[in-house]
Amino acid sequence: PDKSKAKVMNVAKSMRKLGQDDPRRVIHSLKVGLALTLVSLLYYSRTLYDGFGIAGIWAVLTVVVVFEFTVGGTLSKSLNRSFATFLAGALGLGAQHLASIFGEKGEPIVIGFLVFLLGAASTFTRFFPRIKARYDYGVLIFILTFSMVSVSGVRVVELLELAHQRLSTIVIGGATCIIVSMCICPVWAGEDLHNLVTSNIEKLASYLDGFGDEYFHCKSEDEEGKVNVSKKDKPFLQGYRSVLNSKSTEDSMANLARWEPRHGRFCFRHPWKQYLKIGAITRQCAYHIEALNGYINSNIQASEEFQSKIQEPCTKMSQESCKALRSLASAIKTMTDSSPANIHVENSKTAINELKFAVNKASSLEKAELLAIVPAATVASTLIEIVKCVEKLSEAVH
Amino acid sequence: PDKSKAKVMNVAKSMRKLGQDDPRRVIHSLKVGLALTLVSLLYYSRTLYDGFGIAGIWAVLTVVVVFEFTVGGTLSKSLNRSFATFLAGALGLGAQHLASIFGEKGEPIVIGFLVFLLGAASTFTRFFPRIKARYDYGVLIFILTFSMVSVSGVRVVELLELAHQRLSTIVIGGATCIIVSMCICPVWAGEDLHNLVTSNIEKLASYLDGFGDEYFHCKSEDEEGKVNVSKKDKPFLQGYRSVLNSKSTEDSMANLARWEPRHGRFCFRHPWKQYLKIGAITRQCAYHIEALNGYINSNIQASEEFQSKIQEPCTKMSQESCKALRSLASAIKTMTDSSPANIHVENSKTAINELKFAVNKASSLEKAELLAIVPAATVASTLIEIVKCVEKLSEAVH
Repeated sequence: PDKSKAKVMNVAKSMRKLGQDDPRRVIHSLKVGLALTLVSLLYYSRTLYDGFGIAGIWAVLTVVVVFEFTVGGTLSKSLNRSFATFLAGALGLGAQHLASIFGEKGEPIVIGFLVFLLGAASTFTRFFPRIKARYDYGVLIFILTFSMVSVSGVRVVELLELAHQRLSTIVIGGATCIIVSMCICPVWAGEDLHNLVTSNIEKLASYLDGFGDEYFHCKSEDEEGKVNVSKKDKPFLQGYRSVLNSKSTEDSMANLARWEPRHGRFCFRHPWKQYLKIGAITRQCAYHIEALNGYINSNIQASEEFQSKIQEPCTKMSQESCKALRSLASAIKTMTDSSPANIHVENSKTAINELKFAVNKASSLEKAELLAIVPAATVASTLIEIVKCVEKLSEAVH
Repeated sequence: PDKSKAKVMNVAKSMRKLGQDDPRRVIHSLKVGLALTLVSLLYYSRTLYDGFGIAGIWAVLTVVVVFEFTVGGTLSKSLNRSFATFLAGALGLGAQHLASIFGEKGEPIVIGFLVFLLGAASTFTRFFPRIKARYDYGVLIFILTFSMVSVSGVRVVELLELAHQRLSTIVIGGATCIIVSMCICPVWAGEDLHNLVTSNIEKLASYLDGFGDEYFHCKSEDEEGKVNVSKKDKPFLQGYRSVLNSKSTEDSMANLARWEPRHGRFCFRHPWKQYLKIGAITRQCAYHIEALNGYINSNIQASEEFQSKIQEPCTKMSQESCKALRSLASAIKTMTDSSPANIHVENSKTAINELKFAVNKASSLEKAELLAIVPAATVASTLIEIVKCVEKLSEAVH
């Protein structure tokens, strides 16, 4: 009993955390409940029931299937569902008419053949990446409705009425979803994408902010054994990791954002593709940081003398890149001009030259410790790559 | 007309390419058509129609919704659908019974409240990452069936019969899908995951195979302007890119693979998690290669003298890592012992020492060109990181 109690406590805890991490999840659940209840009560009221018959249940079905977390998702699904149902219904009626020409014996064969043909062809189109991304659900509903209409048609005589009923119930269900999801605390996929992209850039910035201290400080403290303690306390050194695998999330959000109407500062045809571009460069930068991160954890001791010489320009490079990233992030966030970032980009580029100068000076002083220099030199040149990435990013944001 | 003709030609071309890239797509489409036709004809035959009534259409619906590309996907969806329908149907009947106690006026209120409660609660559980990954569809169907049964119950008297009909048609549809997808050219998610992981390792291997030549050769040819020509002709330099973003594909395949029964060399509880681990290390390696790739394209000229000195150990490192990766890939592919890879891992580790020796020797010869050495040194130390990654990988494969 203690064990099961602990388990229940665990589940409760993780539920609470889930809600606290993003309170919109709780609101979304309540919204789904609300839409569902609304449509169910609609089905209850006698006037509507008499009008729609048992087809009214399709409104309930539509709400459950169509209601998504974001407005874009809900819109895309309900529009896909409505259009696909309409199109497939019309085609299904046509198929049935065609089949009826062939007489009672030929009918099932013709219908079976048509269902096979359209089912196979539509399934194949779902493999097109573009259709998969935007109209996957629509194609699914198309196959579904077409086969249902053409097959059931043989039995139900009042097919036109049925089609009309089904379509209107789907529209009722879809409209309820759209209204509830847009009017009560709407979650916009576009805004989420916007925030994700900026928060990713900020994560990289806070890594670079801490990197200089971490790398140069850490090394000098190494002998005292304090390193391991200090590393785990610093979440900013882990933050960039989530950026590495952000591609699929960004892609799907951009796809949903396309469906959303004007909201807040975003217009209908907001350049969502630009976000994907910025996201791709951010990831590129994150790959370099991943490489950089290997040297914080590495045990290879670099020459301290050389390190102290490059410390200043390296710290400056990472600091200025950090500032440039932060200012780019805030420029994206507020949708203002990103030119303030240019100063920092320029500064970090001068730091590259300072580094080169420092290395040149070092090389005339030292002679034998080339091997010990290599790790530090790698850090420096990875930083140079990061500066280049930041520059590209600032061009993309423009 | 010419423009639209070109468009049609384009679509036809991309369709052909889609089919040629993976012929299983064409087969899958035909399989869906077949299953759909089978179930439709079942609905046609009078004996069954008399038994199931209009509920027979649910078999068609199930086939469309449940049939997925992989066996794991089909199994997971049909099992989720059957169990969720059963559970929600039972709960819905209970809810209706409970509501009927409250009299004719209280009934709609109680039903509405219960639908709201279960709808909201179930929607919230869909945010749990574990449930989202494995039972998302089941929860969806649970909400759907529960609200349909509890709402429609007020009207339809023969509810038990309806529930029985619906469940059996869903089982018929699901069983058709499972049989067709498992018996006709099955596509196993587990096998796909297996192949994806090995092909990713091989992509990295072929990059490393070509890298030595590309980097050292390319540099020496730079003056002749042949670089740009040579780079575009080499697809192996791009292959690793797809590895960078492979996480989401691998995760979803591993989730589907869990559902699959024993097939070929894979048993039911194959350690699919191990593949995710190997995949993560492969990606780590790919990040380092991404960093490395920056230096092939970079314009910074490194000292040629120094380069020629580290050329041999560097080439050896990348060659031996490549061999180690290839032998690991083939060990995974054939599920045999991976110990042959150890020799190559050891060889690449001796190459690190050779490199250190070469650098040491270089440092006593040269003096002033420290700055020119940095890029080449970075390449060398990134290669060292890659060797470490390969070692970790060979431990994970064991």
